[in-house]
Amino acid sequence: MPTYKLTIEYDGTAYAGWQHQPDQPTVQRTLEEALFQISQTGTSTIAAGRTDAGVHALGQVVSFRSDKPLSPEEWTRSLNGVLPKDVCVHRTEQVPETFHARYSATQKTYEYRILNHPIRPVLNRLRMWHIPKPLDLTSLQAAAPALIGQHDFSSFEGSSTDNENPTCHMHALRIHEEPPIIRITFKADRFLKQMVRAIVGTLVEVAQGTRSPADMKAILAAHDRRAAGKTAPPHGLYLLNVEYEGEEG
Amino acid sequence: MPTYKLTIEYDGTAYAGWQHQPDQPTVQRTLEEALFQISQTGTSTIAAGRTDAGVHALGQVVSFRSDKPLSPEEWTRSLNGVLPKDVCVHRTEQVPETFHARYSATQKTYEYRILNHPIRPVLNRLRMWHIPKPLDLTSLQAAAPALIGQHDFSSFEGSSTDNENPTCHMHALRIHEEPPIIRITFKADRFLKQMVRAIVGTLVEVAQGTRSPADMKAILAAHDRRAAGKTAPPHGLYLLNVEYEGEEG
Repeated sequence: MPTYKLTIEYDGTAYAGWQHQPDQPTVQRTLEEALFQISQTGTSTIAAGRTDAGVHALGQVVSFRSDKPLSPEEWTRSLNGVLPKDVCVHRTEQVPETFHARYSATQKTYEYRILNHPIRPVLNRLRMWHIPKPLDLTSLQAAAPALIGQHDFSSFEGSSTDNENPTCHMHALRIHEEPPIIRITFKADRFLKQMVRAIVGTLVEVAQGTRSPADMKAILAAHDRRAAGKTAPPHGLYLLNVEYEGEEG
Repeated sequence: MPTYKLTIEYDGTAYAGWQHQPDQPTVQRTLEEALFQISQTGTSTIAAGRTDAGVHALGQVVSFRSDKPLSPEEWTRSLNGVLPKDVCVHRTEQVPETFHARYSATQKTYEYRILNHPIRPVLNRLRMWHIPKPLDLTSLQAAAPALIGQHDFSSFEGSSTDNENPTCHMHALRIHEEPPIIRITFKADRFLKQMVRAIVGTLVEVAQGTRSPADMKAILAAHDRRAAGKTAPPHGLYLLNVEYEGEEG
């Protein structure tokens, strides 16, 4: 059966995350319902990143198989015609049958957005983490390099889930400041559950002066979630894009 | 009684505009209810721009009088404590008794945001006008200069309201392109009802090729709303800021 790769955008606000959960609205269920409407057959989907409740995506990648004879452009148009306003398909591509949105991914990029301003955001209230007191960006910058490279990131893993491999290769962690907005981007081969939010929560504690940039190494070495800081809220997090073998980096 | 000037931000989505209307949620009622909660007295407010339903504000200015003995900072904090999530106060200043948010204003700036992209927006769906087909920015740029300067803008006035003065001085009209987003900013001494949206709707018809940039002069000269184009939707419009005598431009 032909295999397709979708690149999708969604507003995570109304969803209990990507993945199926009983009696909860999820992006996966919404997308599979749209696929059912178009193909009249149950069609299961696989996403590159299983985003949590409230997390947004600008470039989530999803794979599915279907023998409904539609061109990639027709899939995009048909899906966008039935999907709700908070989910849309940017692009559909036909891919080899061996393609798997999660296992074939070579690199993912997440971005975390913070509004560092005494006044709470209105237009961006569901799009950024509001931190009223000034953050020390110099400390934030100083804390980041310790996370680059290959590490066991267990100290930043949300909840000890299945006994999966805790090693990730962090290729880049960049801090962009456009006052009052701070954006932190993370590029890695893979991410553990709630890893970006746990890192952001910890970096913010450094920028608030309750931890020192030099603590980052010991936090990583502890392999213990209790060594790191709080988990940043989901609504500041965006899955920006996912890369695959043979694509440009 | 001391007079105060508030600078406020709001998300216009849930409101029937700024101004009081029977049985409708308005920003004015929301703000006056917050003032009542704090001062325990009915307090009326005046806004610089009476924004329509769905229009947003990043820097609306509102004046009110109160003898509740609070400092400007206390007004800001107290109001933000009781206002809903879609309205907030950025700043409170005590001003001379002669200050009137509307009549004392010397210049206002509005911005209109367009997403010019084949795929509908998700995260910005309530923040921009979505135009799927490519717009010709060169024509758009060519049409703008005819609107600069002092003109009778009746052709861009929403509905022939009270017999008010139709002359406005347009100081600047700038088009910023950051594909796929186009932002058009308007600076004028005053604006007629729905004027920015009527101008944007007309400029978009030029950029779509159904009108020519050279038509703008005749449209202005017609003094007739039917001569101009459609009214652009409200959710792409933002009141950015309001300037007063003695302030920096």
